[in-house]
Amino acid sequence: MRILILGGDGYLGWPTAMQLAMAGHEVTVVDNYLRRRIADETDSAALIVAPDLVERARIFATVTGKEIEVTIGDCADRTLLSNVFLHFRPEAVVHYAEQPSGPYSMSGYDAARLTIENNLATTFNLVWAVLEHAPDCHIVKLGSMGEYGTPNIDIEEGWIDVEHKGRTQRFLYPRQAASLYHTTKIFDTDLLWFYVRTHGLRVTDLMQGPVYGVTTPEAELDPGLRPNFHYDDIFGTVVNRFVVQAVAGLPLTVYGAGGQTRGYLNLIDTLQCVDLDVRIEALANPRKEAEEHYYNPAHTGLLDLGLQPHLMTEEVLVDMVRLVQEHRHRIRPEIVMPRVRWNG
Amino acid sequence: MRILILGGDGYLGWPTAMQLAMAGHEVTVVDNYLRRRIADETDSAALIVAPDLVERARIFATVTGKEIEVTIGDCADRTLLSNVFLHFRPEAVVHYAEQPSGPYSMSGYDAARLTIENNLATTFNLVWAVLEHAPDCHIVKLGSMGEYGTPNIDIEEGWIDVEHKGRTQRFLYPRQAASLYHTTKIFDTDLLWFYVRTHGLRVTDLMQGPVYGVTTPEAELDPGLRPNFHYDDIFGTVVNRFVVQAVAGLPLTVYGAGGQTRGYLNLIDTLQCVDLDVRIEALANPRKEAEEHYYNPAHTGLLDLGLQPHLMTEEVLVDMVRLVQEHRHRIRPEIVMPRVRWNG
Repeated sequence: MRILILGGDGYLGWPTAMQLAMAGHEVTVVDNYLRRRIADETDSAALIVAPDLVERARIFATVTGKEIEVTIGDCADRTLLSNVFLHFRPEAVVHYAEQPSGPYSMSGYDAARLTIENNLATTFNLVWAVLEHAPDCHIVKLGSMGEYGTPNIDIEEGWIDVEHKGRTQRFLYPRQAASLYHTTKIFDTDLLWFYVRTHGLRVTDLMQGPVYGVTTPEAELDPGLRPNFHYDDIFGTVVNRFVVQAVAGLPLTVYGAGGQTRGYLNLIDTLQCVDLDVRIEALANPRKEAEEHYYNPAHTGLLDLGLQPHLMTEEVLVDMVRLVQEHRHRIRPEIVMPRVRWNG
Repeated sequence: MRILILGGDGYLGWPTAMQLAMAGHEVTVVDNYLRRRIADETDSAALIVAPDLVERARIFATVTGKEIEVTIGDCADRTLLSNVFLHFRPEAVVHYAEQPSGPYSMSGYDAARLTIENNLATTFNLVWAVLEHAPDCHIVKLGSMGEYGTPNIDIEEGWIDVEHKGRTQRFLYPRQAASLYHTTKIFDTDLLWFYVRTHGLRVTDLMQGPVYGVTTPEAELDPGLRPNFHYDDIFGTVVNRFVVQAVAGLPLTVYGAGGQTRGYLNLIDTLQCVDLDVRIEALANPRKEAEEHYYNPAHTGLLDLGLQPHLMTEEVLVDMVRLVQEHRHRIRPEIVMPRVRWNG
């Protein structure tokens, strides 16, 4: 199958590209290095710096004999994306081409406007490229569990049937996010869902929690194939940040009361089992979010499709710690602390 | 009170400005004539052409002795809107500065992208102008009942309490619109609702149905003060279009089965009471919408605040017909028929 990956330089995009190429698919990736530029501008260097996308594809081809085609450019540019579609004729697209940082989106006017405009324009252009050039193409859009916020009822997969005054209606599950970035993901969802209803667009919206980890089977083949590993307050997800803090002997920075629950549980308990001297520091929460809340998302859809989950075992965390330890000379404690407050 | 009206040249903006000025408020209006430009580009001239905004304010001052301050410019331009806020220091803002046509938003890539970018950028800039320059300013945002679509349960005002598996959660009422324009109104709602939650922004979201009519007490003072009256397929709302068709002896163009229900009822029955020879023509529906559906929106909030509704009486329709008859030489049948189909 011909699979196009938008945002192929990213923490998720690159490992996805390698895995699909190894599985025998034809893979093209597009990226404009927006995340790298924002990381430079916000002094948020990755712990493990990945070579650029062209170089990574070259290393990958050398090591595996598999080609990944690379286009460096902006998916918000209609001409560029149209040309990629006309040239590659994708049968499926995985859409990661978004500004992905909640804290960055909350850091001021320019960052907020960039996040809104970039994320909507890339999604909008993708819709039109599919409608105009590849109407049967299947879009896999990476959503975020953060779109849902923390409702006091179960989060259902996709839709919810609401009974009200003796009548019923099925709604796309209502969303209410805790950052502007996550709000733009709601816009994307609504935009795609609109074109699904009016134009029969084929979309799978994958709602995922914060991702952690540093390696995949393909990334093990060469140090140059590892994904970017961010541990800073802008791009670092919480597990990755805690692992780096543990390795550096820094206290774990828990935001507020620490009752926030996401796709992984018992994180702090698990980390304490790792052979490191870990302290915990409660910071005033820089975000505006519920610190104690109900959280019960349904998650049977992917399991029914055959997903074999990789659990956050001690072994997984020990492997992460080992790799971070190799790079500990690069850890800069000052970029782990939250530099952006939601409320100015 | 100092009241700023964004989109003050519009069908709703201008009558709002006059009414608030007559009520003794200080009023400033901003408009970039976007609707006039799109009307030109789509060959959708108004039946009754209003003088430009500067000229209308001049006529209004001459007739009433009341000043309406005018700024011609784009609310998507941060500097312009900031300067208006710094100069005028509004205590309330009425936000109409959006591309308001569903059919235009469905007419192609450029129109769709303009609608998304314009409507989100004006709303976003308004949020930031308030946060930075007038944090206590109250925003009145014009929403649309079209945001809700046609759910099979009652449409509640604002929020809905959902009971699910023995637990309850209050959600902003879920939205699912039938045009891209209405989808951008959902984005606006979500954007404002986000900043209400995180920054304490003060917003009233007025959900209104399609508007009809051609005059207000202030507009009666001088022919140059009348609002734009569009009857075309792009900017003409359905009642206005039907009145023009009745006057011109054209069949009423009902889209599809004609069971679509909105904020007014028994429209066709009422029109048939007016002394005109009215025929009805069922067109293949150019839109993708439910033609038979449940529709029961709650509407007690404004009545509780003292709203005196003006009902769509025969007298009201007769007055509209009379005014349209005065301008019947300008009616162009070819721009009444739908020129945009939702599905290409």
